[in-house]
Amino acid sequence: MLLKRGPFKSPSYAAFGYSLQNPRLIRRQNYNNIVSCDFSSQARKAKLYLVKSEATGEARCKPKRVNGEPSLADRLRLGSLTEDGLSYKEKFIVRCYEVGVNKTATVQTVANLLQEACCNHFALAFQIYDGFPITHTMRKLNLIWVIARMHIEIYKYPTWKDVVEIESWYQSEGRSNTRYRGDWILKNCVTDEVIGRGTSKWVMINQETRRLQKVNDDVRGELAIHSPKTPRLAFPEENNASLKKMPKINERIQYSKLGLVPRQTDLDMNQHVNNVTYIGWILESMPSEIIRSHELQTITLDFRRECQRNDIVDSLTSSHEMMMDDTVLEHHQYITNNGSPNECLEFVHLLRLSSNGYEINRGSTVWRKKLHN
Amino acid sequence: MLLKRGPFKSPSYAAFGYSLQNPRLIRRQNYNNIVSCDFSSQARKAKLYLVKSEATGEARCKPKRVNGEPSLADRLRLGSLTEDGLSYKEKFIVRCYEVGVNKTATVQTVANLLQEACCNHFALAFQIYDGFPITHTMRKLNLIWVIARMHIEIYKYPTWKDVVEIESWYQSEGRSNTRYRGDWILKNCVTDEVIGRGTSKWVMINQETRRLQKVNDDVRGELAIHSPKTPRLAFPEENNASLKKMPKINERIQYSKLGLVPRQTDLDMNQHVNNVTYIGWILESMPSEIIRSHELQTITLDFRRECQRNDIVDSLTSSHEMMMDDTVLEHHQYITNNGSPNECLEFVHLLRLSSNGYEINRGSTVWRKKLHN
Repeated sequence: MLLKRGPFKSPSYAAFGYSLQNPRLIRRQNYNNIVSCDFSSQARKAKLYLVKSEATGEARCKPKRVNGEPSLADRLRLGSLTEDGLSYKEKFIVRCYEVGVNKTATVQTVANLLQEACCNHFALAFQIYDGFPITHTMRKLNLIWVIARMHIEIYKYPTWKDVVEIESWYQSEGRSNTRYRGDWILKNCVTDEVIGRGTSKWVMINQETRRLQKVNDDVRGELAIHSPKTPRLAFPEENNASLKKMPKINERIQYSKLGLVPRQTDLDMNQHVNNVTYIGWILESMPSEIIRSHELQTITLDFRRECQRNDIVDSLTSSHEMMMDDTVLEHHQYITNNGSPNECLEFVHLLRLSSNGYEINRGSTVWRKKLHN
Repeated sequence: MLLKRGPFKSPSYAAFGYSLQNPRLIRRQNYNNIVSCDFSSQARKAKLYLVKSEATGEARCKPKRVNGEPSLADRLRLGSLTEDGLSYKEKFIVRCYEVGVNKTATVQTVANLLQEACCNHFALAFQIYDGFPITHTMRKLNLIWVIARMHIEIYKYPTWKDVVEIESWYQSEGRSNTRYRGDWILKNCVTDEVIGRGTSKWVMINQETRRLQKVNDDVRGELAIHSPKTPRLAFPEENNASLKKMPKINERIQYSKLGLVPRQTDLDMNQHVNNVTYIGWILESMPSEIIRSHELQTITLDFRRECQRNDIVDSLTSSHEMMMDDTVLEHHQYITNNGSPNECLEFVHLLRLSSNGYEINRGSTVWRKKLHN
């Protein structure tokens, strides 16, 4: 997921997100601010009153009320919790300015809509505190979400006026007490066809100390109310592409665009570069002939470091073949097993600060041949 | 309006818009492709069946039908023609990724929503042909819209989850047989407060020859069906800011950002830079202290030339004081008469090709002091 500040964080609050000056900070844990809470009490407070929509028959969270009435946005939005209350679905009409080449939605549009569905899900299920979609206890403990990885696959890009439905859900990552994941399924509402999937990894940090926090029982209890009880993965396939490790390509740079400069419009209120800009920067170093002949099928981004107004960034890319050594053998294996190796091209990416080479993002992309150029 | 290809043009079709290699072309008129049409017949064909929405009581165009049914997007969209059929209103919920500094919508978001309302208006009232929202006769004559000027004023920026309503209408410009204008009013749906206004000027060109075309009676008849019968202006004030002439600032450059490069994500399918990018480029040369302390109140853009993938662009800005000479006296007069001169700052802008100095856009902006920094 391409959220700078997490799926559960208002994108306008720049302190949130993967804005870690030193990514090692998240490995040092600090519990000073953790206070004991009564889990069952918190869980009761967080429990939502579910109502059935007369129109759709779907379960809906009771919309947040302002002066006793649900907000106009809550009444008009085409989103609701699913029948079991464990995921959220929202319909979006692709807007005219959200399409680009081939009259299809851009990958940035898809990323934005995943973000919107995720924010609305959390805002509906929990609460917005000072712009943060977080739980009651997270607020008490000064905890926020930080995205560590995002992986999106798009099988068929929607076009202008297509209606897409995004289902969003989250759960803890295995038995981990530090990580959560958020998953998405994208469907074309007319054909009911799955046109994309996405997954993301999240950790919780203390908003002030910027240190990783274990998710304690109180928060886990709140979050569990709207989490699937057993693992439900958008990518259930064994050894799926969302899990692959990305190598560093410093020694094997094939294509590059150096000296990229953040624009005013790339920044959030904390003067940090927003996440969708990273996708654009990765595309900058892609060979133009590939962009003309192929379309992006899969993008994976590991978030390592924030980028600020005056940073200058180098975008580096190498083809899969160039990177073909023991490091990426496993990844290659995946592609040949699951993809169409004759039609798909695979690239590995690195965004780094021009000044000192510090990594901002590692990424990988898979491109399929366009049907019509 | 910030449409590269006009309010009535699919933004994914790059041949449309102000993509004039030589802006003088629009002053040379070529009628070779104009054929005679029976006006009354065309008008009848274009006339729409209006129905009343049971829910809102508003007149609605009968949605375009696919296989006998209105499209899902037409059924779900919160937009309809007004009671008299002479304008279009659509509600939008501001999305989480559309807000920036101060948690308010960006000017780019506002520009995008104006474009979306305008496209949906025209698509509902007329038809989409190969991605162009144009009338039947325009299609026959191979005519498309080209934007010449856009002017937006934002009095109060909406925030995340605010619901805004945009009313969109168009009409011929005075007695001109070459120009049309599109106007907008933005309201906050909860308070019913007018939070912004916009206007734009359009001409019609032949899609192939790229030459200006007079709007003949057939096309005028089609367009008139959904145009106000008397002038209805978003800016009815005499000598209003949308009319001001913008001087060239070559000789009085105060602030600049040189060497701006289009990104892949700035381009449409014809490899032309999309219109919202121009706003961003103008902001690039604004002094950062002004961006921190002020917010954009008014932006005016004159579109002169398209910009392509390999162009390099200089963004030049001068404050009103720097430009204060006979050329801009009239403009200054407007500001002092109608604005709050002690709180607002005014700038003049130029985007030009680095290589040869050719003008891409002239612009002007007015900035008011932020209430909270």
